Parts: sequence; C-alpha cells; structure tokens
Amino acid sequence: MIIVMNGKTDHSDVEKVINKLKELGHEVHISQGEKRIILGVIGNVENLVSVPFYAYNGVEEIIRILKPYKLASREFKDFDTTIKVKDIIIGGKEVIVMAGPCVVENEQQIFETAHQVKASGAKILRGGAFKPRTSPYSFQGLGEEGLKLLAQAGKENGLAVVTEVMSVNQIDLIAKYTDIFQVGARNMQNFVLLTELGKTKKPILLKRGMSATIEEFLLSAEYILSEGNYEVILCERGIRTFENYTRNTLDLSAIPAIKRLSHLPIIVDPSHATGRWRLVSPMAKAAIAAGADGLIIEVHPDPKSSLSDGAQSLQLDTFAQLMKELRPIIQAVGREFGSSLENELERIKN
Amino acid sequence: MIIVMNGKTDHSDVEKVINKLKELGHEVHISQGEKRIILGVIGNVENLVSVPFYAYNGVEEIIRILKPYKLASREFKDFDTTIKVKDIIIGGKEVIVMAGPCVVENEQQIFETAHQVKASGAKILRGGAFKPRTSPYSFQGLGEEGLKLLAQAGKENGLAVVTEVMSVNQIDLIAKYTDIFQVGARNMQNFVLLTELGKTKKPILLKRGMSATIEEFLLSAEYILSEGNYEVILCERGIRTFENYTRNTLDLSAIPAIKRLSHLPIIVDPSHATGRWRLVSPMAKAAIAAGADGLIIEVHPDPKSSLSDGAQSLQLDTFAQLMKELRPIIQAVGREFGSSLENELERIKN
Amino acid sequence: MIIVMNGKTDHSDVEKVINKLKELGHEVHISQGEKRIILGVIGNVENLVSVPFYAYNGVEEIIRILKPYKLASREFKDFDTTIKVKDIIIGGKEVIVMAGPCVVENEQQIFETAHQVKASGAKILRGGAFKPRTSPYSFQGLGEEGLKLLAQAGKENGLAVVTEVMSVNQIDLIAKYTDIFQVGARNMQNFVLLTELGKTKKPILLKRGMSATIEEFLLSAEYILSEGNYEVILCERGIRTFENYTRNTLDLSAIPAIKRLSHLPIIVDPSHATGRWRLVSPMAKAAIAAGADGLIIEVHPDPKSSLSDGAQSLQLDTFAQLMKELRPIIQAVGREFGSSLENELERIKN
Amino acid sequence: MIIVMNGKTDHSDVEKVINKLKELGHEVHISQGEKRIILGVIGNVENLVSVPFYAYNGVEEIIRILKPYKLASREFKDFDTTIKVKDIIIGGKEVIVMAGPCVVENEQQIFETAHQVKASGAKILRGGAFKPRTSPYSFQGLGEEGLKLLAQAGKENGLAVVTEVMSVNQIDLIAKYTDIFQVGARNMQNFVLLTELGKTKKPILLKRGMSATIEEFLLSAEYILSEGNYEVILCERGIRTFENYTRNTLDLSAIPAIKRLSHLPIIVDPSHATGRWRLVSPMAKAAIAAGADGLIIEVHPDPKSSLSDGAQSLQLDTFAQLMKELRPIIQAVGREFGSSLENELERIKN
Repeated sequence: MIIVMNGKTDHSDVEKVINKLKELGHEVHISQGEKRIILGVIGNVENLVSVPFYAYNGVEEIIRILKPYKLASREFKDFDTTIKVKDIIIGGKEVIVMAGPCVVENEQQIFETAHQVKASGAKILRGGAFKPRTSPYSFQGLGEEGLKLLAQAGKENGLAVVTEVMSVNQIDLIAKYTDIFQVGARNMQNFVLLTELGKTKKPILLKRGMSATIEEFLLSAEYILSEGNYEVILCERGIRTFENYTRNTLDLSAIPAIKRLSHLPIIVDPSHATGRWRLVSPMAKAAIAAGADGLIIEVHPDPKSSLSDGAQSLQLDTFAQLMKELRPIIQAVGREFGSSLENELERIKN
Repeated sequence: MIIVMNGKTDHSDVEKVINKLKELGHEVHISQGEKRIILGVIGNVENLVSVPFYAYNGVEEIIRILKPYKLASREFKDFDTTIKVKDIIIGGKEVIVMAGPCVVENEQQIFETAHQVKASGAKILRGGAFKPRTSPYSFQGLGEEGLKLLAQAGKENGLAVVTEVMSVNQIDLIAKYTDIFQVGARNMQNFVLLTELGKTKKPILLKRGMSATIEEFLLSAEYILSEGNYEVILCERGIRTFENYTRNTLDLSAIPAIKRLSHLPIIVDPSHATGRWRLVSPMAKAAIAAGADGLIIEVHPDPKSSLSDGAQSLQLDTFAQLMKELRPIIQAVGREFGSSLENELERIKN
Repeated sequence: MIIVMNGKTDHSDVEKVINKLKELGHEVHISQGEKRIILGVIGNVENLVSVPFYAYNGVEEIIRILKPYKLASREFKDFDTTIKVKDIIIGGKEVIVMAGPCVVENEQQIFETAHQVKASGAKILRGGAFKPRTSPYSFQGLGEEGLKLLAQAGKENGLAVVTEVMSVNQIDLIAKYTDIFQVGARNMQNFVLLTELGKTKKPILLKRGMSATIEEFLLSAEYILSEGNYEVILCERGIRTFENYTRNTLDLSAIPAIKRLSHLPIIVDPSHATGRWRLVSPMAKAAIAAGADGLIIEVHPDPKSSLSDGAQSLQLDTFAQLMKELRPIIQAVGREFGSSLENELERIKN
Repeated sequence: MIIVMNGKTDHSDVEKVINKLKELGHEVHISQGEKRIILGVIGNVENLVSVPFYAYNGVEEIIRILKPYKLASREFKDFDTTIKVKDIIIGGKEVIVMAGPCVVENEQQIFETAHQVKASGAKILRGGAFKPRTSPYSFQGLGEEGLKLLAQAGKENGLAVVTEVMSVNQIDLIAKYTDIFQVGARNMQNFVLLTELGKTKKPILLKRGMSATIEEFLLSAEYILSEGNYEVILCERGIRTFENYTRNTLDLSAIPAIKRLSHLPIIVDPSHATGRWRLVSPMAKAAIAAGADGLIIEVHPDPKSSLSDGAQSLQLDTFAQLMKELRPIIQAVGREFGSSLENELERIKN
C-alpha cells in the first residue's frame, strides 16, 4: 500500500500516519519529495484496509498495490479451475453451451426446448422459476412447479440444469432441483445470498452486475470462495452504458482480462447483453473467439408467445444453426466442442 | 403503446400483430406510411407488457406511452406524500436531516454522535449494524449488538433511527429496533426483499441503485407500494459514471425530475455519492437548493479511527457548521428547518 | 413522428400543436385516450425536426420514428458499400488489416514496421504525423516529415497508407501523402472538419467518439456523405464506461448493429480500445467473429522505446502470430484473407 | 511516479527499468516485497511521461503521483483567477449570469432577449452564430450576420457577449465581434483549436466534454494556458451517463472538486445539461449553492418558435423569476450579485 501525502504537510502530521502504520506492525519506506511525500508499505496489508487514512491531515491519495481478492486471483492458484457438473467439465478444453427459455412456462415448452437444444449440442438446460422482474406487474415465474418441470426436462434429455436463486430463503428449495445455482446481475452484491451460497456444495453461476467493475465482480466471487465453495463460474452479461440500441453493452474484453486476473472459468450471455435476437449469434461467436469457456443462450420454441424476454430469444432452428456455425470458431481458438468426459479428465490428469 | 413496423412488411405479418392486439381486447389505430406502419393502442395496456412483439416479423420498435409504474406516479396521486416517523414529518415543508456514523462501532461512539447531531438539529440517527461491504474481508458490522446501541442512543437523545436491512431473514430482528428500514443501493433490485418490506408497517428509505435509471428506481418503489406499504422515502446517492475523482456522480437533477414524476419524498446522501468529506457540505447545500426533502449524512466523532468509510465522514464540528450554513438556503427555497409537528400537521390539514 | 400529449391538456392547446403540424404541410392522425393524446405524422418530417414541440403546453414526449440519418442508412442503399483504395477493396469479402505504429518516429522505425506488417499480410500502413494528445506536454508527432516517411514506407512496401487529420488547415497538406484520411475519436463531432472532408475525394476512416451513440456515429458519417464523399469507413474503437481495467470498453455489438442500420463498412481498433497489448489479439479475433470488415492495429518494432502508446502496441512477431491465428476465424465466418482484387471485382459485378 | 512490478520478475528485468529511470536522470527508491517490487521516483517526472514502461517485462502498474497539468493547478497558483471582461469580473465575489438564445435567429429576437436579460440582472449575452449540430440537416446558424446582430444587441444593452468558435478558420472573424470565445463540449479535445485560442488575447469559455474526466478537462485548459492565454473560464454542462430522462447528467460535484484542484473560475450550464426547461431553475440554484462562479442559461422570447433547443429555453419571464429566486441563495453562500466593478477591484487589491 502506498500513502501519498502533500509535500507541505506538517512534520507532526506525517508522523501520525507513520506511527499508525508502525502501531499496526508495518515497516514504512519513506520517499520525501518537494511536492509529495510517499509512504510505502510492503507485504500483507490486510489490517490496513479499514483504516481511513484519508481522514488524516495531509493525505492526498491511498493506492492499493495488491488486488483486494485473494482466493479468486491467479496469484493464489496459477492453473485454471475446472468444475465438474454431472459428466460435464466447465473451464476445460471443451466449450460448454447452456440453453433454454428465460422462464419455464409449461411442460410442452420446456420439454420441446430441452429435446432440441440437446440435439444441437447444448449440455446444460437453463430456465427460470423465480424471476427478478423490473416491474412488480410482470410475470414472476412458476415457482416450485417450474423447478420440477425444469429438472424433469433436464433428466429426460440428459442435460444438467441451471436456474436462478434470488434470496436465501429459496436456497433449500432450489437445491432439490438444480445442478447449478445462478445468481443474477441484480444480486451480484447481495452479500447475504453470496455468503449462504458459499456454504452449499453446488456450483454457482455468478453473473456480473450491470455496473460492476471486474474487480468488484471478482470480490463477489471471493465472498463465495471464502466460505469454502470453490466452484464459481463467472458470467459476463453486459454492462450499463449510455448506448441504448442494445439493452446493455457486452464487455468482451472482460474475458481475456479475467483470464489473466483469475483462475475461474468465465462464460458469456449474449442474449441479455444485447436484448435483440439478431445480435445474439454474432456476439456468441465473438465471445468464443475472445476466449470464453462457454455460453448461456436464451432459446424458445415460439418467442412470439413467450412470457418474458421474447425479443432476445432464438428460435430452435436459429439456435441449431448457430451451434453449427460455432464449431469452426471453437476449433480456430484451439478449443473443443462435445468432447467426452474421459478425454477431459485425462487431460486434466496430465 | 405504439408498435412501429417496417413499411415493407407483408400485409399478413401486419395482420398477425393487429390480431394479437385485438385478441387481447384492444382497439388499434393504424397509420400507414411509405417507410413505416404505426399501430397505436390507447388506454390500459397492462396485458400487453409481457407480449414479445419484437419477435413478430416486421416489428421495428415498441414504444410505451404510459409510465410502467402507477402507485408511485404523480398521476395516481397529485399531492405530495408525507411520512410521519414519531413526531417527524418527512416530505412536508420541513427539511429533515438524518445523521450518524456509517457503522455503529461502540457505545461511546454512537452516544456521542447522537448527542451532538441532535444538538445541531438532526432529527434522525443513522448507523449500520449489518453492512454490505464489497470485500468479504472488511468489517461487516456488530449485528444485533449494534442495533441495540443505535436504538438506545436514539431513545436517549429523542432521535428516530434508521438502519439498513440486507436480507429478508433480518427483517424481524431489525424491526424490533428501527423506526425506518433502509434498503441500500446494492439491494435496490432485490425484489424478494422489497416485496417483504412492502408487507411491513414501517417506512422504507430506498436508495437508488448505482446504475438504476429514474424509471427503474420508481419501479422498485412500486414493488413496496404494491404490497400495501405506502411509506417510501427515496434517496439519491450517486450513480456510476466514468468520472473517478468522486466515488459516484451525484445526480441532483433526479430531484426535480422525481418531484415531477412522483409524489414520494426524496432525500440526498452526499457522503456516499462523493466519497470525500470535503465535498459533502457543498453538495448538501446544492441538494437542498435543488429541492430535496432532506439529507442523510455520515458523521463520526473521530473519522481517523472509524472502521468504515472514514474518508467521507464529517467530524462533529464540521457537521454543526454545515447545519448552520444550510439554514439560509433552506429559507431561500421556501422550506423550514426545525418546525414543530403541530405546524406541519396544521399545514397538511389545510 | 409521434407527439404525445397529456390527456388533460386543454383542447385549445392541442389545437395549437395540430395547427402547427398542418401549417407545415402534414396530415395528423389523432388518437385520444384518457391519459394521453397521441398525434401521429407519417412521411417526410424533415421540416419538423427543428420545431421545439416540447415548448408547447401539454406536450410530454416527441418520438421520431424514422432514423435521422438518410444517406448512411441501409434503407437508402440496401447493398454493402465497398471502397477501393489502390488495389484493395474495403467492405468486400476480404478482411483488411491496417497496421503500424501509433506515431511515425523515424525512418528506421516506419520502414521496418512497413516491411514486416506487409510480410504478415497487412494491406494498409497506419502511422500518425499529427497526434491528438490529452496533455500539451506529450509528443505531438513529426508533422510533414512524418507524412513523408509514412508515404515512402508505404510506397516501397506496396502498402496503402492512412493517417490522422486533426484540423481543416491540415487537409491539403495531408492529402498530398495519404490514401485515407483518419478522423480520430475526439474529432468525431468536429463538424467543420467533417464537412470539409466531405468535399475531398479520398476515403475517410471515421472513428467513433468515446461517448457517441451508434446513431450519433452514423450522423457524423452523414455529414461527410451529404457533402458528396460516399467513401466512409467506420471504426469502432471503444466507448467510455465506468470500467477502468481497460482504457475503454470495446463495443463489439456495434458491429452487427451497424451492419443492420447502415451499408457502410466497419472495422475495429482493438489497440486503443483496450490500451493493453495482451488483450489486443483476443479482441481482434472477436471483432472478426462479430463480423468486422477489418482491423486497425498498433504495431511497433520496439514498444519499449516508442514515443506514444507503447503499452498497447504489438511487437512485430506477436503481430505476425496474430495474423496467422486470424485466418481460421476469417474462414469460419465466411470471409477471405488476401484475396486478389480481380476476385473481388468479379464478385461485386455479380 | 511509482512503477509496480511483479515480485517474481527476473532480477535482470527489474534492472532494465531501473537503468532506464537512471538514464533519464532520476533517483530510484526501491521497496522489495514478496509479491510486488515498488520503484518510486520523486520530483519532476516530466521526461518519464512518454516512456512506455508497460512494455517492459514484469511491470504491472504505473502510478502518477503528481497531476499531469501544471499551470491550471492550484499548486501552481494558490489564489483564485479572476477574469475581467469589460467592467465585469468573473471568478470574484460576484456571481455572473450569461443568458441568451441558443442561436441568434433575427434582430427582433436577439434585441428583445438582450434587453430583458439585462433588466433581470444578466451581465453577458450569449448566442450562437456557428452551431455544432448533431445532424447535418439541422439549422447551423446565421454565420457572420448572427455575429453582427449579437454584438449590436450586446452593445446597445451594455452587455458583454460570448459566442462559440468551432474551428481555427473562424477565429479571426469571431474575434471581431465577441468578448469571450466559447469552446463547445464536442471541441473540448480539438487540440488544434485550443492551441490557436491560446495565442489570442480574449477569455475562453471552455465547456467540459460529454465524456471528459475532470483531469482531462483541466488538461484541455492547460493547452490554452500553456500558449500564454491565462483567461480560461471552465463550464460544467453535464456528462453522458446511462440516465436518459435528462439529456446529460449535470455533475455538480465537479464544482467543489475543481475549486480544490484548480484556481480557474467555473460556471454551470443547466440548460444543455438537463435538456428540459423545467429542470433549469432548480439546477441553477443548486449550482450556486455548490459554489459555482456563474451560470450560462438559454433564454428565448418565444421558445415555441426557436430554431434550436427550444425545449430547454426559459421564457423571459421565467428567467426573470429565476434571477429573483437566485438572490437569497447567492447571499447564503457568501457571494454577491450585481456588485460594482469598483468593489470587486477593491477586494482583489486587498
């Protein structure tokens, strides 16, 4: 940590800061310039984080050198985390596609979708039962009935399932039906929820908040990791900007950035990011080219009749077409599509 | 609602949209131009909100004419909502100041603060017992012990109290101690929490999310109102922008904007918005000049030793000075400071 | 154009708006609802654009249905614009790569770069002679000497060249040396410059402003087109957001969006967008996968010694490696790399 | 300047950076930690600014300690700059109001406006003759004819005048008519224009760019100052954010922030910031309460008939009313309104 003080600060005020640092057990490197005095502290500064140095006279800036997250950082673990869900490996060489409707609406809808996305190569079925909706008057999901349908559709078609959990009091119920808990963008800093999910044994798909920096995103992952659940899958889903042609702005540069900063797998949701189905396929391809470990895509057998987010859902045949077009790009970046579990386990072993 | 279709759309495709609208009970006004076909639906379009018209061939744009919120709108209620907390009226002619530390740390801290902010003219004591912190390694508050100290300090000094609730499972506990529930910016779209708070009988101080539009902010208030709790106090606390000299960008234009769109009272938090104590006083004055109904300000007897947000806390004497400087501005905009309950009740009656 | 008025507006006030519309030659469709009155005008509303309807009593919202740009729109021209520079076609099936240093520094630097990027497959050499720098104390370029070196290096290596023009008084000078004029992000709304460039006969590479919407970007292109120069190449180079790990946020969804809205070719600058050389290659690949017509990439023989933007420049061998890795992605999206002019002309003919 | 390197960096790579620093004449303070190596350089680092340290192996972060602007900084000059225009002092104790139409449209309009705003207490008349318009099809101003009318209206009513200059080739013409050159938000980083204006002898009203940080804003002022023109008036006019109820988001916290960082006067434009005339008065009051040195407000005798920005223009009587309401706020913050030049000069002398 570096504390920058004004060069004209009274000597006694500089001493107060130095004494505080020493009192907390740190050695201080002092560089005195004409305009600025720089106090450097090397090493573990954990106990300095909450000290409000800005409240001391003469302090101009406080600069943290080390990242505030630890377990999520690549420095903590320098090989990629892989997460096993049933016979699927997320974060390995294979690109994993999750697909399904925004909301589970009825048996016919979810079973038809499951059957078709499986045929196209998806490995995981998505579908909401509890939906966070901006307006209280929008359809909020079928609740447990939706969970049951999702789980059955997944089971019958050999797909793992992922669904959103919005509150701590839904965890036990949802745990009975899902393979992966999804935390939505609006809950990325619902720290009570993150802490409780950190105590479960299931993988967590953590979506980036609409106005979250990459650092805040990794700190939210840290909340889960620090409770003992190391199976966090990150998901870039667009950030809020001034551009309003798209619903959000998909920040694909976050993919290679996070690959450098963290060992956690990261996938991309081009459906919510763009809000327009015509942009989903090009952005899905771009996400893979940028290095994403997978995709989560909204698919609906009849978007016109969907109860939520129909504007961004792909029809089943458009999705099938996309999956075909993705293959050469997946190969071009040295990844695989549809590899068997055995190969993957073999690879990880070596 | 207006549906804009491409002028070259096949007649049968236009018919599909019109039939859907008629099927749902609406009369359709059709304006056919060379480049665009415009379908207008007047009146209550509640049942159209979830219909994904973008998924229909030829649809280019869907424009909602009426605001999606109702109970929160000025059209629903054309006089200002006032909220009574003990003998305090929020949203009336009097400007109400809430003050106190970011976090309740110990008895001495909260009692000294309570005593002093009361003396300076504050009516409500703030203080966190459960704190949402970006990092899991930061101090998270004293929990129930903090609630007890806050309630006692408020009682002894004749101040109402406000404290943050982060999760549905904290509601009952916090209700025992607080006069007002605060919902933080990170939970503005925690819809499960909003729904449950809508079932309580206590006023809710709802902070604007860091990336929430004014419309989304009012829709979150609508979640609470639609459950039967009409006592919502809005709070502007800065939005996230590219500017990083300040922690957030305080959007004071939201004050007159919300005064036009809604009947709910709105206050301003200049402490979290700026993140720098030197900017708190000027922005507090600006907030009042812009028409805010009150302020919530962080005050600490010794910011240097505070466990959270010391950089933005005012010292007790700086706060006292600010309160003095606010008076002429409050008068200049035709508001009052420190009026008695009787006067206020009188005024509302007339 | 649609004008939304409050349903309670006095009849005479509604008449004033209607009369104004009729006076300007328009037929008005009126839809009267309880809460809103909607006035629709179909057809060419050019003469309504500057009328300040918001200043009329009762007007709540004005909604433009048609895009404000015309010549740049796909409705105006429904096939892709291709731009011929020497024997290069931009906007055709071939993906075109422009590469070179941020700034021309000396003969050795620009010639070595030109030679190597040519060998790697680039077709156009970039290099600044007049540089817009945030600080007046940064190196501002070599001026005409830089232009000469750039033109020579391009000529000797069979590369077309592109360089930035910052002001109308530089146009004549730069025209003597460059094949393409580049307009930087900071000048995207320098309308005097755009207008003058619209009178030249050379292609314009127009970069998106840091805070420009897609609509504003296309309106700036319209400034050039409306003066008679139809050869505009758009360039996405990142927009300004709250995220600060990257210098800007590369908005790749703008690629498919602009492909739908406009017929103009669009390329991507991953160097300025990210500001970090390690992110350039993944984002270059993603750009091609998203459908970009080309790339503009900063390359320097020795980034450590570069006078500008060294942090984001690729070394020559890293660039060569990227060019190899791009090929399979270019093929995967059905594009070509290094096709001959004859093939391209053939294709356009058919 | 501080250079942070990875703790595992090879010793020889650390040496390369140190040698570069020494070669450029600097003493280096080295703090070696386990995870990070910190190299500190104290003093004048001017010659390090363009060195691309990020291109060196092992370099993780470069942190500038001193602000990159000098002449604009409060450290360079610790008392407030005051700028004299005719008998008006900007940046002194008196709050100065500039008012007038967006665009000069005709003699009647500008003379009536001038007469009335003078009567209400404005000291400077604004009005555009060359207008930057987003669309090439919008009215672009009357050119020299507009300048003449503006100058005459100013002269006859005892008002100084301010008008926008968009390009270097307009400087000489506009200089003949205006007292203050205005640089619009879109030209804040038109460095050629700033440099040329720095060579003139007239005050410059520099508007903040829509996506400019405070630091970039001050660096643009530095361009003018560094050419020898010290009379720069800064103007906050809203930044671009995701909020779209207002045209831009007025960043009033920039006022106290800039008062700390710089000695230059700063005024506020609530008209362009909000884009809605109903928000202009509350935001004008808030600007003064936040410490602004003045205001620039759009006023039009008949907004309905205005050719540009009618939606945000105040009518003459609304403006007169605002001017009355501003007085007590101006007093409340210890400023004056309508003080004589003599008083001001007296004060500056003491």
